[in-house]
Amino acid sequence: MGSLSANTFSPLDSNTLKNESKMVVDFISDYYNNIEKYPVRSEVQPGYLSAKLPQSAPCCPESLEDILKDVSDSILPGLTHWQSPNFFAYFQANASNAGFVGEMLCSGLNIVGFSWISSPAATELESLVMDWMGKLLNLPSSFLFSGNGGGVLHGSTCEAIVCTLAAARDKVLKRMGWDKITKLVVYASDQTHATLHKGTKLVGIPSSNIRSLSTSFSSGFSLSPQTLQEAIENDIKSGFIPLFLCATVGTTACGAVDPIKELGEIAKKYNIWLHIDAAYAGSACICPEFRHYLNGVELADSVSMNPHKWLLTNMDCCCLWVKQPYSLIDSLTSDAEYLRNAATESNNVVDYKDWQIALSKRFRALKLWVVIRRHGLSNLMYHIRSDVKLAKWFESLVGNDKRFEIVVPRRFALVCFRLKPKNGIDGSKLNRQLLFAVNESGRAFMTHGVAGGVYFLRCAIGSTLTEERHVSELWKLIQEKAQTILANATT
Amino acid sequence: MGSLSANTFSPLDSNTLKNESKMVVDFISDYYNNIEKYPVRSEVQPGYLSAKLPQSAPCCPESLEDILKDVSDSILPGLTHWQSPNFFAYFQANASNAGFVGEMLCSGLNIVGFSWISSPAATELESLVMDWMGKLLNLPSSFLFSGNGGGVLHGSTCEAIVCTLAAARDKVLKRMGWDKITKLVVYASDQTHATLHKGTKLVGIPSSNIRSLSTSFSSGFSLSPQTLQEAIENDIKSGFIPLFLCATVGTTACGAVDPIKELGEIAKKYNIWLHIDAAYAGSACICPEFRHYLNGVELADSVSMNPHKWLLTNMDCCCLWVKQPYSLIDSLTSDAEYLRNAATESNNVVDYKDWQIALSKRFRALKLWVVIRRHGLSNLMYHIRSDVKLAKWFESLVGNDKRFEIVVPRRFALVCFRLKPKNGIDGSKLNRQLLFAVNESGRAFMTHGVAGGVYFLRCAIGSTLTEERHVSELWKLIQEKAQTILANATT
Repeated sequence: MGSLSANTFSPLDSNTLKNESKMVVDFISDYYNNIEKYPVRSEVQPGYLSAKLPQSAPCCPESLEDILKDVSDSILPGLTHWQSPNFFAYFQANASNAGFVGEMLCSGLNIVGFSWISSPAATELESLVMDWMGKLLNLPSSFLFSGNGGGVLHGSTCEAIVCTLAAARDKVLKRMGWDKITKLVVYASDQTHATLHKGTKLVGIPSSNIRSLSTSFSSGFSLSPQTLQEAIENDIKSGFIPLFLCATVGTTACGAVDPIKELGEIAKKYNIWLHIDAAYAGSACICPEFRHYLNGVELADSVSMNPHKWLLTNMDCCCLWVKQPYSLIDSLTSDAEYLRNAATESNNVVDYKDWQIALSKRFRALKLWVVIRRHGLSNLMYHIRSDVKLAKWFESLVGNDKRFEIVVPRRFALVCFRLKPKNGIDGSKLNRQLLFAVNESGRAFMTHGVAGGVYFLRCAIGSTLTEERHVSELWKLIQEKAQTILANATT
Repeated sequence: MGSLSANTFSPLDSNTLKNESKMVVDFISDYYNNIEKYPVRSEVQPGYLSAKLPQSAPCCPESLEDILKDVSDSILPGLTHWQSPNFFAYFQANASNAGFVGEMLCSGLNIVGFSWISSPAATELESLVMDWMGKLLNLPSSFLFSGNGGGVLHGSTCEAIVCTLAAARDKVLKRMGWDKITKLVVYASDQTHATLHKGTKLVGIPSSNIRSLSTSFSSGFSLSPQTLQEAIENDIKSGFIPLFLCATVGTTACGAVDPIKELGEIAKKYNIWLHIDAAYAGSACICPEFRHYLNGVELADSVSMNPHKWLLTNMDCCCLWVKQPYSLIDSLTSDAEYLRNAATESNNVVDYKDWQIALSKRFRALKLWVVIRRHGLSNLMYHIRSDVKLAKWFESLVGNDKRFEIVVPRRFALVCFRLKPKNGIDGSKLNRQLLFAVNESGRAFMTHGVAGGVYFLRCAIGSTLTEERHVSELWKLIQEKAQTILANATT
């Protein structure tokens, strides 16, 4: 066997690890320091990268220096810079030092957590941190392990939706027979995130069975309990089986909040699984002044929210809590001889492979645990509140300019606004021009939404590095571009 | 707005990033240096962690020193050490410096890649690296972007299976009507990974429609084309609709390889979607001497393999290639106003949200790209070959000891063996005792498999740090424990 030992290839060598990690940390640190120099939204054209990089893998090892040079020269120009303080698009994806080092620990230990025994600490820390996070949100104890519910970390809301839909589906089909799958109906407002449609279809329920219920300005684009009740009654009359209701706390387009309590009472009445998607605004609910948006959560079957959006947790991290873990497990369990072990058979442990789509999982819990401890509730609340304060300020700047209007009342740190229509020119056209001009400048990046037929600009405040001066600059930029557009609109 | 600026809370500060990253790298480096001191499989009891850690999140920030101390004192003892050179269980999860720094880059840039525009470089590098990887495996060009197919990075095989099953399902149901979902049939051998069953049920196909076809010793536990053909014919006669065949290159229990070419011809004949799951052994196919196991891949519709197992890529990373990207996209696309953008509407770009379950995705491509470049094909092949060489050597040690036998012929770096039954004592009992004794020693961790009714021990060689001396020590340990067990078995 001598010849093997002679080779010096050691892909996990300590000194190299230290040296190369330092190079990368310095690189990332420089990136953050210079991030405002890049156009926020990438300006490259489709296909730009294949002209810059080889079409095949190298045969010989290359140095990290060369690789980092390529990242600088070829990758950075093609990034849309989510960590830029001038990023106001979609929803923010909060990076933080704590999230970064949490990821390093996760990646360095590199365990695979499918069963308890495959790394007990990973399972137990995940259960613990899900209870922590649940308590921060003041969830009823029925969602915590300490109250016979429980939580699991997924990578995305879509995964959480797929798993809860499957659990709800299987509860009903077990009783009524699998051929009833074409009769199951899923309810949500027309503001609900596209993941619900995707998830519904993924679990085998026809897209035509999704009821995308109308909302309107008058209710701030929240789902009306009466509309829901009518839809359910109609479906029952037509022989459908009401299955699942997804209510949202902080919708993507405009930050609307569905009335959880009233919807929950209807869901209970018809024995419908109620899921609360608080992907964005869930993080705000750690502050007492926002927690009321979750009132009625005790009527839900499951709740999810994404610390990777607004809670200083690097991608990816989605928290899902369920009241009846056995419903999830019933749907998602897998039984294979090679996974059998004494701990599982004792029924004394959580095997997270039965709580999610994939069998294997990363040690994400470590990241969230580091994020929570390193900041503490106090700084996490400070983080949310300072973003909301900036958003309020931005909202007031917009409101004080007669050319503009707020389209949907702000609830969190998302401001939905537009240029008022002028001289008979369609508001949509003006605001498309405005958004185009702002984004083309490279100095900021915002996206748009449409609600009630109205096209508006979304200013999502909350990138980790965003300070007052960036919001101030954004407003100046918007005003500058608006002036030109309006000037042209009058001629 | 003055009061906000006054606070010094800066969760993404450069100096802190450097200092704290260094602390964590030193921690990880020490962990690797001391990893052999820990029992490989954790010895903690269920519930051990909740006794050690607070039940609620702290209000005030805590120092990283305190957190790392808790990782040392409370987390490490509860880990099953996948990076230990004495880890021979399940399949290895290869960490490497390159994978680690690749993850750091991904986590530091922290972009969210759902659409091309949300970070063009992330999308384009993913397409590029999937073509690189496809070429390393010598996949037909029909699976590469350069040949009108294409690839995507998922987190796990189960996600890849769910997406391809949904694509196959929707192609058929679009033609035949959604109520035929209960008639769709999925085929695989009884050695196929549990993810296929999980995935099938997830996409709404009844579990009873999975044909788990028998394999036997005589064919090395590979799926017999004749058995498949008969099953299909039977199903057609009974009014079922053959949908999907999952063939495996390197099964989990014993590393069996299904005959892709023969199975592929049958799949073509019946218009069945053929997926090749090469999660484990796909990595070996970068070496010419193993590539023949993929012969016939040109007949498949999709292929997946996991660099996070055996290709020095830290968790998680699963490559999926498809010949007809539009089939995937048809099933998984989501259309929401707030995601609309000019690039998408040009139909000139890849939007990876339509190739996977989640909308959002991490910049995993950067990690795989760093791994491939930092090692080069030459060292990646060296890595595979040295593990296979060690496995051959271990196999010969076992084969030369008359008390033992090889249960299934070794193809890659997984050795399936057992103590021969003795004195009328059931082989399963003896080998359970042996596995228990080895794992209880803390000096190594193996798991078991069952095939053809025979219980055996699995020695999966290939952890990044495993050297000849560790395999040698493992064999000594096995012999030592076997001696005691056999001595007691005779009394």
